[in-house]
Amino acid sequence: MSLPETVAFESGVLRILDQRLLPGRVAYLKPSSIEDVWQAIQTLAVRGAPAIGIAAGYGLAMAMGPWRSSSSVTGFTEELTQQAKYLKSARPTAVNLAWACERLCQRGRLTPGDSAALLTEAQAIHAEDRQICRAIGIHGEPLIDAGAGVLTHCNAGALAVSELGTATAPMYTAHALGRRFKVFADETRPLYQGARLTAWELNQAGIDVELICDNSAATLMARGEIQLAIVGTDRVTANGDVVNKIGTLGVAIACAHFGIPFYVACPSSTFDANTACGADVPIEVRDSAEVLGSHAAAVPARNLAFDVTPAALVTGIITEHGVVQAPYGPGLQDLLGSPKR
Amino acid sequence: MSLPETVAFESGVLRILDQRLLPGRVAYLKPSSIEDVWQAIQTLAVRGAPAIGIAAGYGLAMAMGPWRSSSSVTGFTEELTQQAKYLKSARPTAVNLAWACERLCQRGRLTPGDSAALLTEAQAIHAEDRQICRAIGIHGEPLIDAGAGVLTHCNAGALAVSELGTATAPMYTAHALGRRFKVFADETRPLYQGARLTAWELNQAGIDVELICDNSAATLMARGEIQLAIVGTDRVTANGDVVNKIGTLGVAIACAHFGIPFYVACPSSTFDANTACGADVPIEVRDSAEVLGSHAAAVPARNLAFDVTPAALVTGIITEHGVVQAPYGPGLQDLLGSPKR
Repeated sequence: MSLPETVAFESGVLRILDQRLLPGRVAYLKPSSIEDVWQAIQTLAVRGAPAIGIAAGYGLAMAMGPWRSSSSVTGFTEELTQQAKYLKSARPTAVNLAWACERLCQRGRLTPGDSAALLTEAQAIHAEDRQICRAIGIHGEPLIDAGAGVLTHCNAGALAVSELGTATAPMYTAHALGRRFKVFADETRPLYQGARLTAWELNQAGIDVELICDNSAATLMARGEIQLAIVGTDRVTANGDVVNKIGTLGVAIACAHFGIPFYVACPSSTFDANTACGADVPIEVRDSAEVLGSHAAAVPARNLAFDVTPAALVTGIITEHGVVQAPYGPGLQDLLGSPKR
Repeated sequence: MSLPETVAFESGVLRILDQRLLPGRVAYLKPSSIEDVWQAIQTLAVRGAPAIGIAAGYGLAMAMGPWRSSSSVTGFTEELTQQAKYLKSARPTAVNLAWACERLCQRGRLTPGDSAALLTEAQAIHAEDRQICRAIGIHGEPLIDAGAGVLTHCNAGALAVSELGTATAPMYTAHALGRRFKVFADETRPLYQGARLTAWELNQAGIDVELICDNSAATLMARGEIQLAIVGTDRVTANGDVVNKIGTLGVAIACAHFGIPFYVACPSSTFDANTACGADVPIEVRDSAEVLGSHAAAVPARNLAFDVTPAALVTGIITEHGVVQAPYGPGLQDLLGSPKR
């Protein structure tokens, strides 16, 4: 099974798979400065919240590398703070980017001048992410029966995360165990993450994948070809509502109609205990040009980037700690402890 | 209100709106031979079952024009049969094409040598289609409340039919009555008929239309922006199952989930009393290249052209005779008389 290495750090060299070229070309960036990493994040060469965090950790550690040979600690935390601030500006709304930078800054304050400790911290972020994905895979793989049809939407795969991805982790894990099944990848208009990324990475890994238009999922369910849906998520609110790429709600409604289990896979860090429900989450409205493309009439177009799937339509949430089921309020609290106040 | 004239015949000149150029350019073909009409049908310059039938009627009448000045009738029906056979070969599966050609052949057999009668018959086909659309509009317009959001899928508009179209007829009629409302046009992957055609013609007519990706309809319903869905259909089976463009089923399921009325608009000729239910209708599977485009990974793709919406999800069927509601079996028989055996 061949999985793409979205971000890698080996022998002092950072390597980022350039996702802008997929699926046509597999090429890697080798950023040699923090400016290069900033550029890779800003231009979406690397995308997906966890993957951005991982790249940022390495980028920041790399930027502080020259301090390794310095015996002075004066100015270390100041420069680290400055570089972190700069890197965070690449995508100001990316929560994982800010989180990873902050984690390295905290490390730096504990051991000023020790740039090697920063690299260790970046590697820890990466290793933890891999471990979380593996645990999601282990908890989720029993849901996939041999011969099943599994629907997924958008890309919550290796390309967006690390190694096994989140929604794809149960698939890669079941496949590695020798189980054979089929994945239907929604193309995910308007940006085609399913067509460009998910279909590509599953196919690379040797998983039987078939691409479909978003509007075809319901009829494949009606034909009995889909037994399970697994999607990723950007945020799960305290009541279990799931914010994810536009189109997820339609998938969940169709699953409910046909009695097909609808699962969400995510690290427990995706739970936002401080937001009561999906209605409280502002939904990004993007440029209508992405919908209009070059083919459409010159009319107004609505480009909602995300939608909210109510907890009532979610069969379960697959996390690194296990599968949580409704009622999500108490289930999530059991899993995570009391909500932050 | 400006409606496109998909097919027109004036002062002996046939004019066909070249839909291949829409929405970028509005240009008309003026076929001067039956070969030109064949070409227009075959290359989808004119598309939509009723519009094809109308164009074919005029094309065939035009081809037989030279007989007008001939006093001889020898060979008339033979040539008419030959030309009809040729024209039908432009799109062998288009039921309305064969039906219109056959109707002119029957007319020709009644009055051999009278090519003027053929033109009158072609004009009758066109006029009847316009009347049917107007009647659908009159029966359907009360369903659209002022300020409502109306969802439609694919193109069952003026471009596919004549004048008011079918799914669009209630919209154009309500608009002409001064009622103001908003239409959401699903883009309709993979061929974008909604983005290219429906959005264009509604916008041309001055109706407030917003284009959305197919996967966005459910979330607009959840937000309370859609109060009604009206779609067209290619075939309604004896039990009321509706065969229509892929994606219709997903719309109907989402409507049922949110308690939004889901209507189908069509001429009564669309009812197929000889087919028991949707499961008996073979669904065209088209080239996967239409789904893959130039953006997708090189993976298998499924391109189902149609889906089947079960009668249970259909609130009503708007025909030229009135709105039929469940149970469709008896309702359709009341409307159409006993099924053909």
